[in-house]
Amino acid sequence: MNGFYLHKIAIVGVGLIGGSFALALKRAGVVARVSGWDADRNNLHLAHELQVIDQLPSTLAQAVDGAELVMLAVPVGAMESAAREVIPLMASGAILTDSGSVKQCVVECLEPLALQHGVRYVAGHPISGTERSGASAAFAELYQGKRCILTPTAQSDVAALDTVTLAWQAAGSEVVTMDVLKHDRILAAISHLPHMIAYSLVNSVSDYDRYDENILDYSAGGFRDFTRIASSDPIMWRDIALTNKDSLIEMIDQFEEFLGELKNDIQQADGERLYEFFRRSKITRDALLKPKVR
Amino acid sequence: MNGFYLHKIAIVGVGLIGGSFALALKRAGVVARVSGWDADRNNLHLAHELQVIDQLPSTLAQAVDGAELVMLAVPVGAMESAAREVIPLMASGAILTDSGSVKQCVVECLEPLALQHGVRYVAGHPISGTERSGASAAFAELYQGKRCILTPTAQSDVAALDTVTLAWQAAGSEVVTMDVLKHDRILAAISHLPHMIAYSLVNSVSDYDRYDENILDYSAGGFRDFTRIASSDPIMWRDIALTNKDSLIEMIDQFEEFLGELKNDIQQADGERLYEFFRRSKITRDALLKPKVR
Repeated sequence: MNGFYLHKIAIVGVGLIGGSFALALKRAGVVARVSGWDADRNNLHLAHELQVIDQLPSTLAQAVDGAELVMLAVPVGAMESAAREVIPLMASGAILTDSGSVKQCVVECLEPLALQHGVRYVAGHPISGTERSGASAAFAELYQGKRCILTPTAQSDVAALDTVTLAWQAAGSEVVTMDVLKHDRILAAISHLPHMIAYSLVNSVSDYDRYDENILDYSAGGFRDFTRIASSDPIMWRDIALTNKDSLIEMIDQFEEFLGELKNDIQQADGERLYEFFRRSKITRDALLKPKVR
Repeated sequence: MNGFYLHKIAIVGVGLIGGSFALALKRAGVVARVSGWDADRNNLHLAHELQVIDQLPSTLAQAVDGAELVMLAVPVGAMESAAREVIPLMASGAILTDSGSVKQCVVECLEPLALQHGVRYVAGHPISGTERSGASAAFAELYQGKRCILTPTAQSDVAALDTVTLAWQAAGSEVVTMDVLKHDRILAAISHLPHMIAYSLVNSVSDYDRYDENILDYSAGGFRDFTRIASSDPIMWRDIALTNKDSLIEMIDQFEEFLGELKNDIQQADGERLYEFFRRSKITRDALLKPKVR
């Protein structure tokens, strides 16, 4: 990794995302010591027992002390308060990054704070995850072959961007940089919209009251698979819906338009248009499975 | 199985559904001979080679000749033309069943034809399947532990209903009988609506044109899993959308109402209502994974 090496990193929020980042960097041999912190003291102890972190600090200041890189891996809604505690404890010139699923609100809040304290902030978002959470869910391979999006701004330090890029590459990710707003729009499309749809689908079907029984009892594996993401954490998704509001509304509008077109074709019993709608979708979906030529 | 035994059955449409039915009955030892027929001659040969069927007939008449039970396992849109060929070849008193995903249109079409020829018709729909199709996709365990819905009418023969019930039970299914319209409404909710949503989602996201690239290239495993059913056969789904129109429109209306409510909560930035919406959905979805107490 061209001599890329960090003497100490600190993970604030040692769950699936932060913990896996630590494990991946340790496995790649690019970090000497990993410290960590968690609002949940039991989870912090667990992270230490599982050797996700090497040190069990007694204070946040101790966790962050001497770290060249600090990763904020807390829910989007908790990002600001965590940053307000962490940034003043960091050394001037140290690098701060995060893993928030929405970037505009996080960058708007963290960047001025970081600049104020001489901390070099680079926003990031690894496009990976599982349904599980907590330190026990962390594993070194989570980011292998996945994309990580970094969203530097005009104020971002170029050397700090390099360091965060190298760290994610060491973790096995392909790093892509893009504009903050573009990130939020793309994520609204490929992740936030599907979650809104899955939640709405489960509620609308379970609320169907023409019969005295729960019609979901008839659902088979297909429905269960399709609605898996409706089992995601309500707090995390409340925060995403609140913080990525504009892009999400734009995508819901777009989806409603397409569903409306389909409904109209069904109402008109237009077999040709229905076939074309389904065929086009199938071709697009099937293409997702093919390996990309780069 | 209380002496339940069939000397000959015939499968018309020896694909995943029909072929698996044959294999399951053979494995259960409740049928002596299985014959079959398929519009695709290559698939019929394959079914014979793979021992899904025991006889390779040269005509449809030969396939059906002497069969106590004939299973029509063709797409809903092909059901009527298949029935018009098959029913006149069946012996008076023989039993006809089908596996169509929509029941009202199939029953309305097949029942008068069957009555006219003294054939005892019982409509059915096994709630199972995979993305694969054709004789090579068939396997004896497909129906194990799954539900099969039968939709007898006032005109259905009680003894024939018993026979079809015993056959599905021998195949490993739990048999439920219900009204034709109730079947179509429930399936609209738990299967047809999710498919319409998945197709619409893929088309709406792939049509997002704010950027010069295909934003689906950024999609990760979550999007791929969620949209898996959008890879289903467009012809099959065109037929379902055309034949279960009323129930499907009713469910799309209901879904649009819930998504509209969610969109409104996002627009109002109502965190409490958003949390409650997601929480309710998660509880319902999680409950699908718990084993049912009967």
